[in-house]
Amino acid sequence: MNILIVAAYPNAHSLNAALNTFAIQHLENAGHQVQVSDLYAMQWKSQLDANDSQASPVGEFYHPSLDSKYAFEHGTQSADITREQEKLRQADAVIFQFPLWWFSMPAIMKGWFDRVYACGFAYGVGEHSETHWGDRYGEGKLAGKRAMLLVTTGGWASHYGPRGINGPMDDILFPIQHGMLFYPGFTVLPPMVIYHTSKMTEEKFAAHCAELAGRLDSLWQTEPVPFRQQNAGDYSIPALTLRSDIAPDASGFGIHVR
Amino acid sequence: MNILIVAAYPNAHSLNAALNTFAIQHLENAGHQVQVSDLYAMQWKSQLDANDSQASPVGEFYHPSLDSKYAFEHGTQSADITREQEKLRQADAVIFQFPLWWFSMPAIMKGWFDRVYACGFAYGVGEHSETHWGDRYGEGKLAGKRAMLLVTTGGWASHYGPRGINGPMDDILFPIQHGMLFYPGFTVLPPMVIYHTSKMTEEKFAAHCAELAGRLDSLWQTEPVPFRQQNAGDYSIPALTLRSDIAPDASGFGIHVR
Repeated sequence: MNILIVAAYPNAHSLNAALNTFAIQHLENAGHQVQVSDLYAMQWKSQLDANDSQASPVGEFYHPSLDSKYAFEHGTQSADITREQEKLRQADAVIFQFPLWWFSMPAIMKGWFDRVYACGFAYGVGEHSETHWGDRYGEGKLAGKRAMLLVTTGGWASHYGPRGINGPMDDILFPIQHGMLFYPGFTVLPPMVIYHTSKMTEEKFAAHCAELAGRLDSLWQTEPVPFRQQNAGDYSIPALTLRSDIAPDASGFGIHVR
Repeated sequence: MNILIVAAYPNAHSLNAALNTFAIQHLENAGHQVQVSDLYAMQWKSQLDANDSQASPVGEFYHPSLDSKYAFEHGTQSADITREQEKLRQADAVIFQFPLWWFSMPAIMKGWFDRVYACGFAYGVGEHSETHWGDRYGEGKLAGKRAMLLVTTGGWASHYGPRGINGPMDDILFPIQHGMLFYPGFTVLPPMVIYHTSKMTEEKFAAHCAELAGRLDSLWQTEPVPFRQQNAGDYSIPALTLRSDIAPDASGFGIHVR
């Protein structure tokens, strides 16, 4: 299989670097083709702006989505964006690896999503009608590919538990897993999260590698997070609210998981 | 009062640019001192890395938090970081203005938080004991200052409602409002969110400006989001879980709001 690892860590001698090396070797030893987008090593450009298109603005002024769409459709995207989209097209599965900074991904990885997820590629895809509101949330150009987050954090597991002060990890990751991965079509696997990274030991590191090996070995067998497809009947269109007879008294992120 | 506006939008002729201009003029007309960090205009550096300190790494290799702490304490931070921290110190209130991209802020603003929020300034502050787990979540160097998000999105309000497919806006913004603003001490005001921005008209724009004027005029009277303070008795320390007798059967983001 073809596996892409998109990783964002600023220190080539860190825990994340060691996990990255381990993952690549483990996957290659198992016979997979591995591509790596090491965003810091690539000096990835983070900010989406007018330079992302080699064409002039479609309108009078630069417009992020309209110019992204034009550049995507006319082959005038910045070369670094096109390369990453090509890696995505070739990938059967993608691992997104990052340390949790301020309850989200490092800016450089957010900039990967902001820029690589062009209009016409990751959003603005498909028809809008009374029964179908674009190819998104379970449909889209990335449908059929699997994605998994590999996240490290200094905080303790209890701080991210159901009643932990940071909020539950699944909820903190919902805007990423549901909003950035499921949206353009990815099948999303449960994340692998490593807590309390400041207290790392050889023993703990070996245990994390063993867990990671297991997750990588079972990429195609792991049961995905059962997010609800947008256009499969569960939602009213165009309000895009969950049908009133499904989980009628509930609200929040949880109702979007079957 | 001193008011800082931190804004991230890539088009100087956009809705966000117009709202930014309106906000500055309205505040200045009311006699306030206004500072603006227009991150795109400043060409703000997004990625946190070893260049953020002018000193050599404390250890053998670059370490994001240890080197951030050393540079903060020894005056060797990159000048752009020091300038933003100084603006924060002077501010009585801060408005964070951005279009919602992939259910979060643009990368360039995430990079503002990643870099300006130095260790010793926004985290890693205060003592850790059995009754006090650092000055955070309601305490910290930014305590006493007010913060408000001003967010635009192309999606409809119903898509972000309690049962909307994107998830409720308050939950999408929780990692920002609770995790990035309340954490270092800000008093967080309810956000102002403008939906469905693709269908903007002169009339709608005037109505949004009127709402914004009202929010700016009442910055010091608006009731804050009543997030629970970490060290005031509601949480067990060091597990940092909500005390079992408070909202005993509940979990998720909502339990951290009184």
